[in-house]
Amino acid sequence: MEAVLAQNVYDRADFFAGYSRLGRSVHGLDGAAEWPAVRALLPDLTGLRVVDLGCGFGWFARWASAHGAAHVRGLDLSQNMIARARAETAGDGVDYQVSDLETAELPEASFGFAYSALAFHYVEDFGRLMRSVHRALVPGAGLVFTIEHPIFMAPSQPGWSADAAGRRVWPIDRYGVEGRRVTDWLASGVVKHHRTVGTTLNTLVDAGFAIRRVVEWAPTDDQVAANPALAEERDRPMFLIVSATR
Amino acid sequence: MEAVLAQNVYDRADFFAGYSRLGRSVHGLDGAAEWPAVRALLPDLTGLRVVDLGCGFGWFARWASAHGAAHVRGLDLSQNMIARARAETAGDGVDYQVSDLETAELPEASFGFAYSALAFHYVEDFGRLMRSVHRALVPGAGLVFTIEHPIFMAPSQPGWSADAAGRRVWPIDRYGVEGRRVTDWLASGVVKHHRTVGTTLNTLVDAGFAIRRVVEWAPTDDQVAANPALAEERDRPMFLIVSATR
Repeated sequence: MEAVLAQNVYDRADFFAGYSRLGRSVHGLDGAAEWPAVRALLPDLTGLRVVDLGCGFGWFARWASAHGAAHVRGLDLSQNMIARARAETAGDGVDYQVSDLETAELPEASFGFAYSALAFHYVEDFGRLMRSVHRALVPGAGLVFTIEHPIFMAPSQPGWSADAAGRRVWPIDRYGVEGRRVTDWLASGVVKHHRTVGTTLNTLVDAGFAIRRVVEWAPTDDQVAANPALAEERDRPMFLIVSATR
Repeated sequence: MEAVLAQNVYDRADFFAGYSRLGRSVHGLDGAAEWPAVRALLPDLTGLRVVDLGCGFGWFARWASAHGAAHVRGLDLSQNMIARARAETAGDGVDYQVSDLETAELPEASFGFAYSALAFHYVEDFGRLMRSVHRALVPGAGLVFTIEHPIFMAPSQPGWSADAAGRRVWPIDRYGVEGRRVTDWLASGVVKHHRTVGTTLNTLVDAGFAIRRVVEWAPTDDQVAANPALAEERDRPMFLIVSATR
């Protein structure tokens, strides 16, 4: 019952309505402050078959298609998101499928690049998924993904507080206690799966990947100058970005 | 002037006296709660030439020698520590040198395994050191090291506090601001160099290493049962353990 709730949250009216209003949902990739750092890790997509795991409204899928990918397949559990992705995508360079990353079986040796943005932390069996992605990639192919950073996800009370001197701090606890985290974000009772940075990377290594880059995202000076509110992201990372190759 | 102060803290009387009283200084490897996790990452040392970077009193160097290493070289900046290591080591399976990891030039392709415990976070130019270690290892050789975890090192006030509900929390700030951290630990004004987990791993990759294991140490159930005070280590990691191969 809990698993079903967790999987279906994205299509709940309250979550979907909130998700649709996020800056990154309205403005696409340029509405995501970490996108320049992610983009810097992408290979040349020219001629590659690409899979986007948890594609949401299809912003990256369309971007990859426009940047030379031979074909892009977008997968998402949410029927609402897939419906909107299809409605906003023209041409035959991209197709979308409703698919649950918890159980999806990807076709073997079928993709030259795999991408995922902020989806894997909703997946409980990350090892199974990484083995499936590894099998689905051709040798030498890349995987770039972002997840909510475990420092952001771990705490019992994941929000800023102030220390005795009035300094903004992020109160960590339970970092080493992996497993479910239930938070209210866009909707109540959203289930995520906390894994440490170490466990995330070791799972990749065990699946056969080589680690290429690990970025605990923080804004650049230019980004903070343009948007001073981003400065708090230097106090604790919200996003973990990983690049690996098969 | 500052660099000289940083380098010489280990031989200051106050620091050295405090260091000598630590559980891990008195009881050796078994006095370090993270040792079983580190040991699990070690290769079979039989017949290997080993270098221990920041060897302190030589506990690991002697352990490696007793566990089959062909030869162990221990390096440490502290003349006091090297003097004591020499005094406590019998036989010719281990030698010690006073050497600054900030500038040490290791002999090329000379070691089959490199080890370091809680020393690299005192080194400012980690990239230089990793390139030097990579050159000093034979192809396929392993590197296992521990550092103070950046979650532990980052904060302006690195100590436990309580949240509004009285819950023990570790107040993070400045995680994304890399560089010097000056703390009072055993002595006043001890300089460490904060790098994120990502920067630490990327530096290894850039030097040519393959990442094998990343462990953000937390105690086992058995360890907490035997020593309940260790439970707090589950709330935030104190140690980062990395295994890599050339």
